[in-house]
Amino acid sequence: MTSDRLAPQRVPIALGDRSYEILIGSGLLSLDGAWAGLPASADALIVTNTTVAPLYGAALAERLQARHRRVLTVALPDGEVHKDWTTLNRIFDALLEAGCDRKTVLYALGGGVVGDMTGFAAACYMRGVPFVQLPTTLLAQVDSSVGGKTAINHPLGKNMIGAFYQPARVLCDLDLLSTLPRRELSAGLAEIIKYGPIADPAFLDWLEASLDDLLALDVAALSHAVRRSCEIKAWVVGQDEREAGLRAILNFGHTFGHAIEAGLGYGAWLHGEAVGCGMVLAAELSARLGLIDRALVDRLRALIARAGLPVQAPRLGIHRWLELMRVDKKAEGGEIRFVLLDGLGRATMRPAPDALVAEAIEAHTAPS
Amino acid sequence: MTSDRLAPQRVPIALGDRSYEILIGSGLLSLDGAWAGLPASADALIVTNTTVAPLYGAALAERLQARHRRVLTVALPDGEVHKDWTTLNRIFDALLEAGCDRKTVLYALGGGVVGDMTGFAAACYMRGVPFVQLPTTLLAQVDSSVGGKTAINHPLGKNMIGAFYQPARVLCDLDLLSTLPRRELSAGLAEIIKYGPIADPAFLDWLEASLDDLLALDVAALSHAVRRSCEIKAWVVGQDEREAGLRAILNFGHTFGHAIEAGLGYGAWLHGEAVGCGMVLAAELSARLGLIDRALVDRLRALIARAGLPVQAPRLGIHRWLELMRVDKKAEGGEIRFVLLDGLGRATMRPAPDALVAEAIEAHTAPS
Ligand SMILES: NC(=O)c1ccc[n+]([C@@H]2O[C@H](COP(=O)([O-])OP(=O)(O)OC[C@H]3O[C@@H](n4cnc5c(N)ncnc54)[C@H](O)[C@@H]3O)[C@@H](O)[C@H]2O)c1
Ligand SMILES: NC(=O)c1ccc[n+]([C@@H]2O[C@H](COP(=O)([O-])OP(=O)(O)OC[C@H]3O[C@@H](n4cnc5c(N)ncnc54)[C@H](O)[C@@H]3O)[C@@H](O)[C@H]2O)c1
Repeated sequence: MTSDRLAPQRVPIALGDRSYEILIGSGLLSLDGAWAGLPASADALIVTNTTVAPLYGAALAERLQARHRRVLTVALPDGEVHKDWTTLNRIFDALLEAGCDRKTVLYALGGGVVGDMTGFAAACYMRGVPFVQLPTTLLAQVDSSVGGKTAINHPLGKNMIGAFYQPARVLCDLDLLSTLPRRELSAGLAEIIKYGPIADPAFLDWLEASLDDLLALDVAALSHAVRRSCEIKAWVVGQDEREAGLRAILNFGHTFGHAIEAGLGYGAWLHGEAVGCGMVLAAELSARLGLIDRALVDRLRALIARAGLPVQAPRLGIHRWLELMRVDKKAEGGEIRFVLLDGLGRATMRPAPDALVAEAIEAHTAPS
Repeated sequence: MTSDRLAPQRVPIALGDRSYEILIGSGLLSLDGAWAGLPASADALIVTNTTVAPLYGAALAERLQARHRRVLTVALPDGEVHKDWTTLNRIFDALLEAGCDRKTVLYALGGGVVGDMTGFAAACYMRGVPFVQLPTTLLAQVDSSVGGKTAINHPLGKNMIGAFYQPARVLCDLDLLSTLPRRELSAGLAEIIKYGPIADPAFLDWLEASLDDLLALDVAALSHAVRRSCEIKAWVVGQDEREAGLRAILNFGHTFGHAIEAGLGYGAWLHGEAVGCGMVLAAELSARLGLIDRALVDRLRALIARAGLPVQAPRLGIHRWLELMRVDKKAEGGEIRFVLLDGLGRATMRPAPDALVAEAIEAHTAPS
């Protein structure tokens, strides 16, 4: 990663008395301006995991010593399987054992799993304490740390127990991405690419031109990609904070993607990988419904492939595909509602005939 | 209990888009008007406990059949010791096993324990579903169901994990109090009596005149007492929804009361009993600080005793008293801040010299 110090980008999130800013840049951790105005209570708790703690835990703790009298750290076990009540309770244990009061600030240092759990813990501890997001994966910087959704999993469903709860600030330090495994980087790119076709044709052009820079972790390119992604997500969420309608367009590629994740068993493909392939299928279905040109399908497919993401669907069998997509939460009354493209830069929700869905999947499945 | 059907009393709670009404009356369960305008989703879940379910569960389920396609019930184990994550999870299990979506309405049928847990479950299930309070204890009708506080306990502290979350409506059906054990009725009266000295001298006069009717469960008397209590609590909470300052006056008697509960071991005295005695001590301390006349101490003490509540403090020893009150959450930097009376109808928060506190306690402790 280059060490150019560009001024950090700022994305303001206007939500009345819950307004906050997303800051994006290189070296934010050591930049005084990035921390100004945040609550400087007596106690702070860094919540991270056992992978990220050895990489960035000490630097953050040192930084926070200057702001808080006492800086505690809890390193959770790493992985989506630990995004549950037992692990969440370790955060509460740490807070209560240390006698932390309701002014304590929580800092989420990690990917989406740590961010979702820390946010939920902050929402519940003494009925709400402030928290700051320090996302360390690309996915967390462009997706999970924006929008105020927090949650843990229940054995019967993902993200079933949670809260809408906004952070006091999000600090996207691009330097932290340097240690991210390649597959995780690509998974994050899937969510970035998504924002182009659903909302911003110019961003799609820019992504095509800049993908190599992004893969090389060029700070200027990352900075723009993260900022534009946050802006688009924030704009969509701002129209629909509590998820009544529009917010669903952010699930472009996700209905097919969830079926892939569930069909292959969670963890076989990363979520972002499944979404990458899912976007190809959703674009294909849009084309077959006459909503977009075939050329756009090819364009998206090429970009997704270049990002290091799979573009061939796994062979699940059409009955299983449909079954898996019907249990997805976007199916109402058994009818699958797909997020489809309606021209470039516009998404729409609608059902589609099973036969067309089958054709779209078949068109992107390797011959057996 | 008389079966007079007075028109229900209504207490509007103005909280912007989270506004709702508290309805108070006899026979509300079977009164159509009490249910009008509530969300009539496909699914409903009654959350109650094993004591209350056999008394009122069937009647409520029958009532709800008319409004929802499917009415499920979960009866939690009874008692404060079960106000924890394991029990809360039984609510989530019931919801997820039945495939309930985010429109499902939760109904809390029980005392404060059921209400606090149901409210917190509603706040968290799929990040928020609507819920209706049907409080079945006097304490729940006049205190815990008003104000939007929900929570569960953690082994290291009571009500440490929760949310501010408002119900869609509160239905205080006074008929449900007919089966309430006497001690629980008295405990509820403690919280009612509290509202007089801190906010409303006329209400204190009325309580003195009406206490026998209240103890006899006279509907007209209960109706007024519950309504006025809800109005006063709602007014205070409305000034301070998230508990920054004023709301603390609702804790009149609670600093001494918590010390009694903790000192004797939780459960020895009911919370309301400890608050009853705590109010005598807080009034005594107010008098010794010159804030109120001795006559008011005597008046309060007499009323509290008539309500069937203890007015003699247990013998904990002054060091233990002070120690217990210092760990109470209202102690900041080791200084105990008492809620005291500053004349009749006005409360104030302030510290007091240990010697005066000791005198106040001694004055109401039986000789050993
Ligand atoms: N709240 C939302 O709106 C939202 C949106 C999308 C996804 N999510 C949630 O986000 C989660 C997925 O997030 P994720 O993709 O960040 O996964 P993750 O948090 O599991 O991180 C992926 C892996 O990368 C490791 N890692 C993180 N940062 C690193 C770094 N800088 N260097 C080296 N390794 C690092 C992690 O330890 C983990 O092993 C899911 O639980 C999903 O439900 C939430
Ligand atoms: N949220 C708030 O603002 C707030 C305020 C005060 C108290 N609380 C909480 O409320 C709880 C105490 O509430 P509570 O005093 O109602 O106790 P509770 O809920 O334990 O009820 C007391 C007992 O009465 C039984 N019962 C309830 N209704 C009955 C009926 N109609 N007939 C016969 N038996 C009945 C219950 O099963 C229980 O055994 C505590 O957990 C406390 O933390 C919350």
